[in-house]
Amino acid sequence: MPAPGIEPALARAPAAAPLITLTTDYGLQDPYVGILKSRVVQRAPAIPLIDLTHEIRRFQPEEAGYWLYCCYPQLPAGTVHVAVVDPGVGSAREILVLSAASQLFVAPDNGLLGLIAQHLPEALAWRVETRALAALGLSAESATFHGRDIMAPLGAELAMRRVSPEELGPRQAPLPGSLTPPRELPDGSLEGCVAVIDHYGNVLTTVPARQMAGRRQVRLAPWAPALPWIGTYEEGTAGQCAVLINSAGMLEVAVRQASAAAALNVAPGQRVYVSER
Amino acid sequence: MPAPGIEPALARAPAAAPLITLTTDYGLQDPYVGILKSRVVQRAPAIPLIDLTHEIRRFQPEEAGYWLYCCYPQLPAGTVHVAVVDPGVGSAREILVLSAASQLFVAPDNGLLGLIAQHLPEALAWRVETRALAALGLSAESATFHGRDIMAPLGAELAMRRVSPEELGPRQAPLPGSLTPPRELPDGSLEGCVAVIDHYGNVLTTVPARQMAGRRQVRLAPWAPALPWIGTYEEGTAGQCAVLINSAGMLEVAVRQASAAAALNVAPGQRVYVSER
Amino acid sequence: MPAPGIEPALARAPAAAPLITLTTDYGLQDPYVGILKSRVVQRAPAIPLIDLTHEIRRFQPEEAGYWLYCCYPQLPAGTVHVAVVDPGVGSAREILVLSAASQLFVAPDNGLLGLIAQHLPEALAWRVETRALAALGLSAESATFHGRDIMAPLGAELAMRRVSPEELGPRQAPLPGSLTPPRELPDGSLEGCVAVIDHYGNVLTTVPARQMAGRRQVRLAPWAPALPWIGTYEEGTAGQCAVLINSAGMLEVAVRQASAAAALNVAPGQRVYVSER
Repeated sequence: MPAPGIEPALARAPAAAPLITLTTDYGLQDPYVGILKSRVVQRAPAIPLIDLTHEIRRFQPEEAGYWLYCCYPQLPAGTVHVAVVDPGVGSAREILVLSAASQLFVAPDNGLLGLIAQHLPEALAWRVETRALAALGLSAESATFHGRDIMAPLGAELAMRRVSPEELGPRQAPLPGSLTPPRELPDGSLEGCVAVIDHYGNVLTTVPARQMAGRRQVRLAPWAPALPWIGTYEEGTAGQCAVLINSAGMLEVAVRQASAAAALNVAPGQRVYVSER
Repeated sequence: MPAPGIEPALARAPAAAPLITLTTDYGLQDPYVGILKSRVVQRAPAIPLIDLTHEIRRFQPEEAGYWLYCCYPQLPAGTVHVAVVDPGVGSAREILVLSAASQLFVAPDNGLLGLIAQHLPEALAWRVETRALAALGLSAESATFHGRDIMAPLGAELAMRRVSPEELGPRQAPLPGSLTPPRELPDGSLEGCVAVIDHYGNVLTTVPARQMAGRRQVRLAPWAPALPWIGTYEEGTAGQCAVLINSAGMLEVAVRQASAAAALNVAPGQRVYVSER
Repeated sequence: MPAPGIEPALARAPAAAPLITLTTDYGLQDPYVGILKSRVVQRAPAIPLIDLTHEIRRFQPEEAGYWLYCCYPQLPAGTVHVAVVDPGVGSAREILVLSAASQLFVAPDNGLLGLIAQHLPEALAWRVETRALAALGLSAESATFHGRDIMAPLGAELAMRRVSPEELGPRQAPLPGSLTPPRELPDGSLEGCVAVIDHYGNVLTTVPARQMAGRRQVRLAPWAPALPWIGTYEEGTAGQCAVLINSAGMLEVAVRQASAAAALNVAPGQRVYVSER
């Protein structure tokens, strides 16, 4: 604890973010991600920059939001996330900064932040105003690359604690997206859906383990047989799809050393039902 | 300003590069990019290393040169670029260092640097001699991986300002490549071409906005109807390809949330015509 | 050299690793690699983190081991490698730390480290015990992501020299994998195999140049004609597959600006024969 009266401002200055993460649908074929990173490292040179993924399916902001929802509990307090899946770039869509769970999320307001906001009732979000950006030397230089012009450098400024979210504009609730938390049906079961098929063909759902309570019967249609449970990928019988709680605490369908998505012929959006029996 | 006579050499020492960028056709499937980076970070540990792309189409140096031409104005003065698309590695092709717009470009002399050199009349280039490399402790250890043996560590030495381009060898103009700046036709229109199809299917051309002057009619064949203009990707009508000036200041053909390249069935090399009417 | 008696502990403290490398089959589509890296940079923030590849074919630990075997001589002494291809995660398979050639390798004991251990008779390996992990604040938080929970942070601790391999558990020899060093046949020739097809379609074999001695006749079947030799990729005749010693010192089959794997229709596992005539 610093001696009273000695550099109190400095003593109170919050520490810089431990990490900045990037999530986009830019892909790795073109230099767009590199240009984005160059804007971050120029403003926040000492902060590690972690790619979550740049392979979000094109124009699917909800998929980015799903991954952020899965990842944030695995990352340290103070982390700043920059997520750019922005088909409406240059149009009237707003840019938001959301604060939740001691982390900050910068993203366009197009449904990307809906899932996080709905899961975390304490989340607060602010709309980013042109005036506040101007004070940071930022503006929409181009009509088509606000990741570069605004969101990446704004994320760096937030990570360096040179600006705080409430200085950026008024409070504004994020728009909901097509992915929502599981809802409880009249019979007490939960209805969620498939959010993402991962690189292994694992089927990741919107259902968090902590919301399942005693429900252990998982089906891909209300009349389908319940899937067996496994604890690890290796446990399953070859060719037999099964459910587990994955490392992010989410309900997942997998099959031993093969693609559950291919075996079940499921895609994002497919409904998932979880009930007591 | 330092007091006269006090550590003048240090006072005059140029600052290290703010960034080093990498551009290759190595892909990300194999460890070749990682090995390249290990050579850079060992010699220039404190300089951020930015991947522009490693997904240049195999053996297409001009594509790398096009991306560098698009990207350099978006990057800070002093940046050092290392670009390795090098099908002739180990043969008689030279390695060049080009200086333009306060940035340095290290690449094989196989057309990669042609577009930049033709666009920037003030560009100067030097051939890298074996003798100069030896003074830096560098040589062609292998016959097939001069990115690792020479270009990456040389880029690091240039970025650390431990050597300057004119110390590396005699002046030598880069070989032209198949991509050239747009040429003016007898009727006053410009003829450029498609350089790259990006991850979204956007069609990127060799035509810079600043060279278009008053010309606004863009066609993919002299007899084809002119394409409509949009300001942002979102503005277009679904399914209707349109032109815009992209975030790098280049003429681009796009279609709302879909692939213009697929819709138009165009590929790199396709001619583009820009005229007043 | 420090003065005798002055801070001897500090003087003897080994330097942190110059690099940490990562090799996985996670792919780049999902955030798994980013989460892994976040665990490394939190524990070893100042050490450069190099991706060798995250595109190992799913569930093929031997492929990761092959790339590590090819890459380690190209990397500096003291490097720590973390390699996670781990289909048996959560099952009874052990985690090992192998020390060889002044480098450390952290990986599951599933054949991944077999090739390195067989090639380097001085290699020593230790089994990582739960008790030793607990002393570092590590445990299997999840049943399915020990890369995140154990191997990545353990690699960081080893790289920071806060723990040494012999403190982690008892000695244990790595399990052999399906890839082995070439064996000498009764007629004096060597029998190796194709280990990897790279991004260019080059065919990389398990045969190191130093083991070939005078043998120069390379065949893909004992009765097939010997392939011609080239020194560089550019030397070959178009369409004619040929052999060379690549930049890692391994025997490779390539064809000028095309895919040798496609031309020869070979895949990993294909036998390769090297004889004096």
